[in-house]
Amino acid sequence: MSGNTFGKLFSVTTFGESHGAALGCIIDGCPPGLELSEADMQRDLDRRKPGTSRHTTQRREADEVRILSGVFEGKTTGTPIGLIIENTDQRSKDYSKIAEQFRPAHADYTYMHKYGTRDYRGGGRSSARETAMRVAAGAVARKFLEQRLGIKIRGYLSQLGPIKAEKLDWDQVHENPFFCPDADKVSEMEAYMDALRKEGDSIGARINVVADGVPPGLGEPIFDRLDADLAHALMSINAVKGVEIGAGFDCIEQKGTEHRDEMTPDGFLSNNAGGVLGGISSGQPIVASIALKPTSSLRIPGQSIDVNGNPVEVITTGRHDPCVGIRATPIAEAMMAITLMDHYLRHRGQNGDVQVSTPVLGQL
Amino acid sequence: MSGNTFGKLFSVTTFGESHGAALGCIIDGCPPGLELSEADMQRDLDRRKPGTSRHTTQRREADEVRILSGVFEGKTTGTPIGLIIENTDQRSKDYSKIAEQFRPAHADYTYMHKYGTRDYRGGGRSSARETAMRVAAGAVARKFLEQRLGIKIRGYLSQLGPIKAEKLDWDQVHENPFFCPDADKVSEMEAYMDALRKEGDSIGARINVVADGVPPGLGEPIFDRLDADLAHALMSINAVKGVEIGAGFDCIEQKGTEHRDEMTPDGFLSNNAGGVLGGISSGQPIVASIALKPTSSLRIPGQSIDVNGNPVEVITTGRHDPCVGIRATPIAEAMMAITLMDHYLRHRGQNGDVQVSTPVLGQL
Amino acid sequence: MSGNTFGKLFSVTTFGESHGAALGCIIDGCPPGLELSEADMQRDLDRRKPGTSRHTTQRREADEVRILSGVFEGKTTGTPIGLIIENTDQRSKDYSKIAEQFRPAHADYTYMHKYGTRDYRGGGRSSARETAMRVAAGAVARKFLEQRLGIKIRGYLSQLGPIKAEKLDWDQVHENPFFCPDADKVSEMEAYMDALRKEGDSIGARINVVADGVPPGLGEPIFDRLDADLAHALMSINAVKGVEIGAGFDCIEQKGTEHRDEMTPDGFLSNNAGGVLGGISSGQPIVASIALKPTSSLRIPGQSIDVNGNPVEVITTGRHDPCVGIRATPIAEAMMAITLMDHYLRHRGQNGDVQVSTPVLGQL
Amino acid sequence: MSGNTFGKLFSVTTFGESHGAALGCIIDGCPPGLELSEADMQRDLDRRKPGTSRHTTQRREADEVRILSGVFEGKTTGTPIGLIIENTDQRSKDYSKIAEQFRPAHADYTYMHKYGTRDYRGGGRSSARETAMRVAAGAVARKFLEQRLGIKIRGYLSQLGPIKAEKLDWDQVHENPFFCPDADKVSEMEAYMDALRKEGDSIGARINVVADGVPPGLGEPIFDRLDADLAHALMSINAVKGVEIGAGFDCIEQKGTEHRDEMTPDGFLSNNAGGVLGGISSGQPIVASIALKPTSSLRIPGQSIDVNGNPVEVITTGRHDPCVGIRATPIAEAMMAITLMDHYLRHRGQNGDVQVSTPVLGQL
Repeated sequence: MSGNTFGKLFSVTTFGESHGAALGCIIDGCPPGLELSEADMQRDLDRRKPGTSRHTTQRREADEVRILSGVFEGKTTGTPIGLIIENTDQRSKDYSKIAEQFRPAHADYTYMHKYGTRDYRGGGRSSARETAMRVAAGAVARKFLEQRLGIKIRGYLSQLGPIKAEKLDWDQVHENPFFCPDADKVSEMEAYMDALRKEGDSIGARINVVADGVPPGLGEPIFDRLDADLAHALMSINAVKGVEIGAGFDCIEQKGTEHRDEMTPDGFLSNNAGGVLGGISSGQPIVASIALKPTSSLRIPGQSIDVNGNPVEVITTGRHDPCVGIRATPIAEAMMAITLMDHYLRHRGQNGDVQVSTPVLGQL
Repeated sequence: MSGNTFGKLFSVTTFGESHGAALGCIIDGCPPGLELSEADMQRDLDRRKPGTSRHTTQRREADEVRILSGVFEGKTTGTPIGLIIENTDQRSKDYSKIAEQFRPAHADYTYMHKYGTRDYRGGGRSSARETAMRVAAGAVARKFLEQRLGIKIRGYLSQLGPIKAEKLDWDQVHENPFFCPDADKVSEMEAYMDALRKEGDSIGARINVVADGVPPGLGEPIFDRLDADLAHALMSINAVKGVEIGAGFDCIEQKGTEHRDEMTPDGFLSNNAGGVLGGISSGQPIVASIALKPTSSLRIPGQSIDVNGNPVEVITTGRHDPCVGIRATPIAEAMMAITLMDHYLRHRGQNGDVQVSTPVLGQL
Repeated sequence: MSGNTFGKLFSVTTFGESHGAALGCIIDGCPPGLELSEADMQRDLDRRKPGTSRHTTQRREADEVRILSGVFEGKTTGTPIGLIIENTDQRSKDYSKIAEQFRPAHADYTYMHKYGTRDYRGGGRSSARETAMRVAAGAVARKFLEQRLGIKIRGYLSQLGPIKAEKLDWDQVHENPFFCPDADKVSEMEAYMDALRKEGDSIGARINVVADGVPPGLGEPIFDRLDADLAHALMSINAVKGVEIGAGFDCIEQKGTEHRDEMTPDGFLSNNAGGVLGGISSGQPIVASIALKPTSSLRIPGQSIDVNGNPVEVITTGRHDPCVGIRATPIAEAMMAITLMDHYLRHRGQNGDVQVSTPVLGQL
Repeated sequence: MSGNTFGKLFSVTTFGESHGAALGCIIDGCPPGLELSEADMQRDLDRRKPGTSRHTTQRREADEVRILSGVFEGKTTGTPIGLIIENTDQRSKDYSKIAEQFRPAHADYTYMHKYGTRDYRGGGRSSARETAMRVAAGAVARKFLEQRLGIKIRGYLSQLGPIKAEKLDWDQVHENPFFCPDADKVSEMEAYMDALRKEGDSIGARINVVADGVPPGLGEPIFDRLDADLAHALMSINAVKGVEIGAGFDCIEQKGTEHRDEMTPDGFLSNNAGGVLGGISSGQPIVASIALKPTSSLRIPGQSIDVNGNPVEVITTGRHDPCVGIRATPIAEAMMAITLMDHYLRHRGQNGDVQVSTPVLGQL
């Protein structure tokens, strides 16, 4: 509960630094009886993995996850699932500069203030590398939600800097390195990214995530509303600066007659609510959208200070993503999956409706 | 922890329905030694109170809070503070229609699905009336933060439907019924609201909240980031559909060189981060912005269904706010105050730095 | 979560001081649809109430509980249940002595160290008066457990100082002021208590609590074992210094062949485990036993110090129970009920198996 | 929070099965700046390790712990500490019998009821092997408590079946395989254990734990009393059936004049309270005592049923401790250390009084 755990009944606790020995997590609360192997997680891990196109960081991590507990004879047992990913690409490097300087818009300065110390190698705990474990944990939630409840969670990049996707073709999302659902925009995005890399600058992005098939009734008002917990989950992703549910900020200029989702016996007539009313799922698709800031690791120098308070000029030379948003789609999906799974268990219990059939002894 | 509690060390748990006997809350974790009386809370409660201008609902509630525990000889003791507001304006009314129908965009339908029952009088638990207790609890947090740490939390309405405030003059905020910081826009807003009321329609709004004087170092990565907890807190307010920290959604189109807040020995050169880096406060002002949807209680009929699934036409005739955003400023301030207070105690301990001076006995 | 809440899904948070305005609590997580009125709680409150025989404190409190929320048309709605008991017997009294002195074996000294202040009137928050709210909350849990699951929770006083009950006749428990299940010991207990009162001294006691009808499968290893949570719940009762489950401390001298509860197709052959194996209920009765210390409010003077560290002689003159154990039976029952209820919901979900039948709309 | 986490600010979450790939845990909330290496944990792990005398199970586990995160340049950073112990002694074995039978007094039957499945190899998650991670986590807490606060936590075996230690000589505790503080009883214990092993039976034990140097003021009434949390922590240890604080069950027959710990300017005159008054530490030593049941893995056959409900005769042939209490001393110390550490941080904050000295930038 000290900050590195998310979820009350489906609890995910992560550990690990960017350049430490390993990343890991414990999933506590996964119901028993779910078929689970490393392969179930690897698919999503590979989607998040760096180095798969020229548009992401060239750091090469195998990101091979290993299940250490909680699975027996191919199925979950209801006990905690321990996961680990060993770090393999720890290039020996001269960290003397980064140890002394606070990079603008990084967590360097704030970690130093909070803890009085920091593991500066590759950003340490504040590195987006930590999100690999969220993707692994999210894959477990997704499998349960899909198999048992038919819930499908999918995300896509809807905007890369100034370029907006104008079509939502789910089949296109995995056909390009951007998770872009609009095939017509892909070459424009490639050109934009190539130019950006040459400049040494970076850019922001928008990711949308949708959960189809969510039953009505999930969410615990007042504070643990489904949308509030989703906002928490999504805002906790590195670089996220904004979260919208359904119509989001557009609702400011909507009139009530326009915003309200009318109902008929055949269903809702619109989904401005994004699938949540009064903090509880309505049975419509859950729709969220997030804004990711441009990474601050730039080859263009910037003003900063060192640990002694003296002015310095900072240049980042390492391997970095010019648009961190590109790899964020699987992470956002994972966080939505974990949130929905947690609320499903809160509503239905730790056992997730497992029917137990062993003989019950009479009482003496 | 079942949904009606916010905060880990400064915990606020609320109860109460719109037309029930009373609203109440327990603040658990307020440090001892804080001077506190009902008047400290009443000021903020009065700012949220309905019926103070023609632009908000004409329901008349005294909203008089009473402290039942946790304060002794005018000061907090460290034990739980019990608060209560008796409901006084419970007009006897015919609820037969509302009991049978699901109003579009209300929580009627989802509460019915979650609980199989609902208190339909005035929206029951899903009514914004519940936020009165948040404002009361927030006032306690604000007083502590201001007195002990010099933190000042202030909010304002930055947009009412299509009308944007263009100036931020803090002195103006309390000079008009909208919490609008731009005096030049007030008459435009008044005219807009009058027209809206005639139409029987409603409109959305945007509220900004700022905390000045927050020390660096508050926030617990990875999941309990200060900004993630703020997003949780703000999204849990009725009608909120979007949350931004700092540059928010604008960061999508920002380049890294533009977004990063450079540092000099004299301070940061900008605040796109909104005062949070890596989930930890940076010492800059914490800046958040929220979108509130238009209320769905409209005099213009809408399609819906009844509890038996038959189509009905719904018209709301009661007393309602055509723009719920107008009264949301004190609520947003309260939720930011509670969040900061909680993180302050997590960082500094339940006692909030209280120095204890009683003699310690030797050990036998 | 700051100390005044018990339970994760069935959460009980209490507030109130002995001589403050009121006691109260919020029950968050009670499933919807349970018939509930004040009378359901009053029965147990009256069993705990002081002043019903000459053997307990003569303070006269009506202990009338009022439901403020969470119940609609006679049934729970799933929203938080707010409860309040106004304090009526606040005799004006001279507290100057008690304010300056630390009574031996009371919480005076430790509260002063923790908080730097304390509400000294009648023990303030540390008074056993707080347990009235636990009894009220426990009554709600008991009703649910009994009606829905057939679970019956009953306690009795098994030892008063040197006098042990030798028979367990449930019908006798409510036939005497001691909750003693052995009619033959009642007159002995009465004589003992009368002598004690004359002396101005006090005595300890042992209470046993049994839950019949608990289904197998409740409890969450490793740390939230059912027995560990029960130990937490029972040890949190004022004056409790020891907790046993099943054979308890007797198991130290038991051999494995003696202790193990053998199983046959007709049931277990013994219950040394007290109904819990590996932290999970076995289907046998849950059996716990607690030790309560003698109250320290005595008419016989004792050595102590004042707030300045000077030696003083302390005599308690107020109204007190010479054996706090006498009134503890309903409190122990309540804490067992709350613990079982919480684990039932953790296993079965917040809704406690409520079947919801409203029509589900198709998705657009 | 799903059962495998203990502590609110110093949170320990464990995973791992007896015969799985590895055991592990995450310590979340350890303050930064503590010097920490594997050696600090290994000392306590070796004290718990099986196979070090003929009186404990002959399973040979290296129990070598590896730190995976949270330590940088030899010191903790404030981020989660990931720990792992690989299982090495996984003898291939025929588990067909144990898979089909419920061993009396084991968790087999209840795990099956709760989860509908179980990892039956060596008891799976319910094996005491899990406590290795508690000992490792406890070692971190102990080091902090000792270095920063001078708190010393020590335990000993005070009774083995019928044999009671009559002297408390701390220097003797580590001079014998029983943690017995009375040298005169060691040969008697050895003979008793040898006879027991021949019989194929087992026996219970009592362990006492003492924390010296605890400052007054730790503990959060009402429910999170220090003693209630300690009871929770200690009862969560495998095989524990009873917990006492201070005088414990002896207080039943104590009079108030005997039980109350009188105070003088030089200190308390006795410690019947066991260092806790009103749920808050008093500055006296914290004293707890626990009862451990005899293990149920016996060579003497016992009646039981199989998974189909048919009667079977069960004999355990594997490697087992005839007295699980013998190795429990380090585990009890660890759980007390974790509990005290958690309450220290709740009182003093996540940072545990760390003074941070980096320059604070001015605000813009």
